Amino acid sequence: MTTEKNIPYKIYLSENELPHAWYNMRADMKNKPAPLLNPATGEPMGYEDLRPVFCDELIRQELDNDTAYIPIPQEIRDFYKMYRPAPLTRAYCLEEKLQTPAKIYYKFEGNNTSGSHKLNSAIAQAYYAKQQGLKGVTTETGAGQWGTALSMACAYLGLDCKVYMVKCSYEQKPFRREVMRTYGASVTPSPSMDTAIGRKILEEHPGTTGSLGCAISEAVEVAGQNPGYRYVLGSVLNQVMLHQSIIGLEAKAAMDKYGIVPDIIIGCAGGGSNLGGLIAPFMGEKLRGERDYQFIAVEPASCPSLTRGVFAYDYCDTGAVCPLAKMYTLGSSFIPSANHAGGLRYHGMSPTLSQLYADGLMEARSVEQTKVFEAAELFARVEGTLPAPESSHAIRVAIDEALKCKESGEEKTILFGLTGTGYFDMYAYEKFHNGEMSDYIPTDEELAASFAKLPQL
Amino acid sequence: MTTEKNIPYKIYLSENELPHAWYNMRADMKNKPAPLLNPATGEPMGYEDLRPVFCDELIRQELDNDTAYIPIPQEIRDFYKMYRPAPLTRAYCLEEKLQTPAKIYYKFEGNNTSGSHKLNSAIAQAYYAKQQGLKGVTTETGAGQWGTALSMACAYLGLDCKVYMVKCSYEQKPFRREVMRTYGASVTPSPSMDTAIGRKILEEHPGTTGSLGCAISEAVEVAGQNPGYRYVLGSVLNQVMLHQSIIGLEAKAAMDKYGIVPDIIIGCAGGGSNLGGLIAPFMGEKLRGERDYQFIAVEPASCPSLTRGVFAYDYCDTGAVCPLAKMYTLGSSFIPSANHAGGLRYHGMSPTLSQLYADGLMEARSVEQTKVFEAAELFARVEGTLPAPESSHAIRVAIDEALKCKESGEEKTILFGLTGTGYFDMYAYEKFHNGEMSDYIPTDEELAASFAKLPQL
Repeated sequence: MTTEKNIPYKIYLSENELPHAWYNMRADMKNKPAPLLNPATGEPMGYEDLRPVFCDELIRQELDNDTAYIPIPQEIRDFYKMYRPAPLTRAYCLEEKLQTPAKIYYKFEGNNTSGSHKLNSAIAQAYYAKQQGLKGVTTETGAGQWGTALSMACAYLGLDCKVYMVKCSYEQKPFRREVMRTYGASVTPSPSMDTAIGRKILEEHPGTTGSLGCAISEAVEVAGQNPGYRYVLGSVLNQVMLHQSIIGLEAKAAMDKYGIVPDIIIGCAGGGSNLGGLIAPFMGEKLRGERDYQFIAVEPASCPSLTRGVFAYDYCDTGAVCPLAKMYTLGSSFIPSANHAGGLRYHGMSPTLSQLYADGLMEARSVEQTKVFEAAELFARVEGTLPAPESSHAIRVAIDEALKCKESGEEKTILFGLTGTGYFDMYAYEKFHNGEMSDYIPTDEELAASFAKLPQL
Repeated sequence: MTTEKNIPYKIYLSENELPHAWYNMRADMKNKPAPLLNPATGEPMGYEDLRPVFCDELIRQELDNDTAYIPIPQEIRDFYKMYRPAPLTRAYCLEEKLQTPAKIYYKFEGNNTSGSHKLNSAIAQAYYAKQQGLKGVTTETGAGQWGTALSMACAYLGLDCKVYMVKCSYEQKPFRREVMRTYGASVTPSPSMDTAIGRKILEEHPGTTGSLGCAISEAVEVAGQNPGYRYVLGSVLNQVMLHQSIIGLEAKAAMDKYGIVPDIIIGCAGGGSNLGGLIAPFMGEKLRGERDYQFIAVEPASCPSLTRGVFAYDYCDTGAVCPLAKMYTLGSSFIPSANHAGGLRYHGMSPTLSQLYADGLMEARSVEQTKVFEAAELFARVEGTLPAPESSHAIRVAIDEALKCKESGEEKTILFGLTGTGYFDMYAYEKFHNGEMSDYIPTDEELAASFAKLPQL
């Protein structure tokens, strides 16, 4: 570690290299993601059907399976410049620690106060809500990054922001709530007594620690009750994959600049927003037959939608008020164990990514959380940055792949997404340090019971 | 906000523009900072006198008043590359919000897991300890940034790290402790029963919430008792100002690149490490008569060492085990009110900065904490980054100066130091949001009582 390197530790693009358009993978997919269905009629939902819930321009993006590049409005680009382009980092210290011939890169999205990549879509969604003349937006948040990101975007644009936060995160992360309050948002633990669905769930499961699916139902219900409000979502949807493509576009531009071509691209996957964004332009090349890459989605063993779920139409939320989406799912009634730390708690998976996975265009792995925290601590010590538990799923598999290279002698180039920092996850780290963290894997019976409640179309 | 700007939002230097040497202001000072004195004899302390406490190479740096540029070892530069060069940011959104003709820039040091500039000196001090073949280091930490930074540096180099953390911060910031544990450090609340001085203070002041001065005494005592250990300090000392000059050197290089010349340079000041580092190369120009700048040190009204202290020899620590330093001080027996949030709680001020202030080369202002948090929240909402309470002192005065420009119509260029993020300070933000934060200003009588206990030489 005492010589100057040919490739810098961090590759920063300049501001004028910030992408001018998002890339829409769907345009290059032969098999498009299946359309959203009306939960009442089972019919595909069009623009007009979705208007009561979503912002107009966002619906257009949601339904657009044809346009490959969608320009990023200047006001969004200006906001992006407060924290982007985000650095692509060469993990020299991790490579040395592992004594691997692999070359490891990570795209770091945590250099902003939301602490993650979620801000990329939050500002876009808030911008289109503002454009439409709305008063405010409602949303759910799990680990808290999305709620924080949306609060920041709304504060910047002068929109009201109502956040329903999964109860176990609300309790484990009181400081996340204060960050959102700093940005002027109202934050309610979910399930709450504010909504019909919240009251119903609390009645059926009085001790529930909540789930994303339930918080979504509440936020959708509240948006419907308040004129001038719409619901916005931080993951899963096609529009979110579109906005998050900025991650992959920047990563690819930075790599192209130095002639680096990744062999393996790894991202953690809850609803799929980070993974979908990171792989977007690379997947585009694969879809167009220009170049092949190995893509690996990493999910927690406690919430394994790709590796143990079914590919079927399901509700996006617990209350079944949202459209039906065809995706890999554990069933909307599945609620992950409370002992699972942080995000990646969603029962389903982005329909776009689900289709790509069904078509054999990417792989998936599940990992247990103690192994994830071991990787997180190792990474923190050698690379400096203390990673979010979510991101650490990708770190775990990146390390595993690098160790495989050590055995085989292969000099593979690995790119993974470091989606954020763990500064608000120290409660989970504390449990890990104290040896109080356990692993939980749902049984086949639990999953079968949940699958049995899938909607019959 | 809809046109491309000539000056980018963020100016990033490239890795090869990272400074190769630190700049030592003392070389250009006509009146050098007064020497450290032996508390027992009152005689100036030389290299040999300081060896029991400090690392050898750091003592050489501490005593070197002549060498203007001291090369940065390659291993330290490699570590710097994990989070440096740090961005210089144009606060376009803050300018627009204030409707000021002033141009505001800030040097952001929070893009690393320690959350502040402290890492710049931590890695240097740990490096020299390692070079000397030591087993570990001891230190104190107030708000927690320094302890975190030192833990990170020690983990990277494989050194043991024992941290004494001011009790009120330890209690208000349990997650800071977990970050340090993630990096393998041991963390003890101070005053503790581990040391003679800790036991004495607890006996005299059973309800004390601690102070930096007391934690320093404990860390020094523990270093003395453990062979192969030395004490390291995150601020105040000349060596720390030297290492922190990287802040100002990068800021100046970035400004020079775009032909920007600041009129006013503002930094928060507790022990002075950030301020001394930020102003270093600019102060060098002023000292050499090449260009004039206005420098403003900002301190809390609750701990006003420059604005209400005396310039005299004093103990650096409560237990009087450290050398005596000539500095602006509130007296080593002064303990700031527990209702004061975060850092900047030190009774004294860097001897280098104290001499510059005594010589009329810089100004100082004190600000009350509710006004500081108002500035912090405004800044977070328009610039995105949620600032540390310490940094927000500088934000307060930068805003005040920008508003003066609005009245006068002057287009001044303001540079301030955004030393870190407030992610571990949400308890203080929560008090602010709940209207539970009050201001505290020590009375003249309190200060007089503390001054009366200054050492008589």
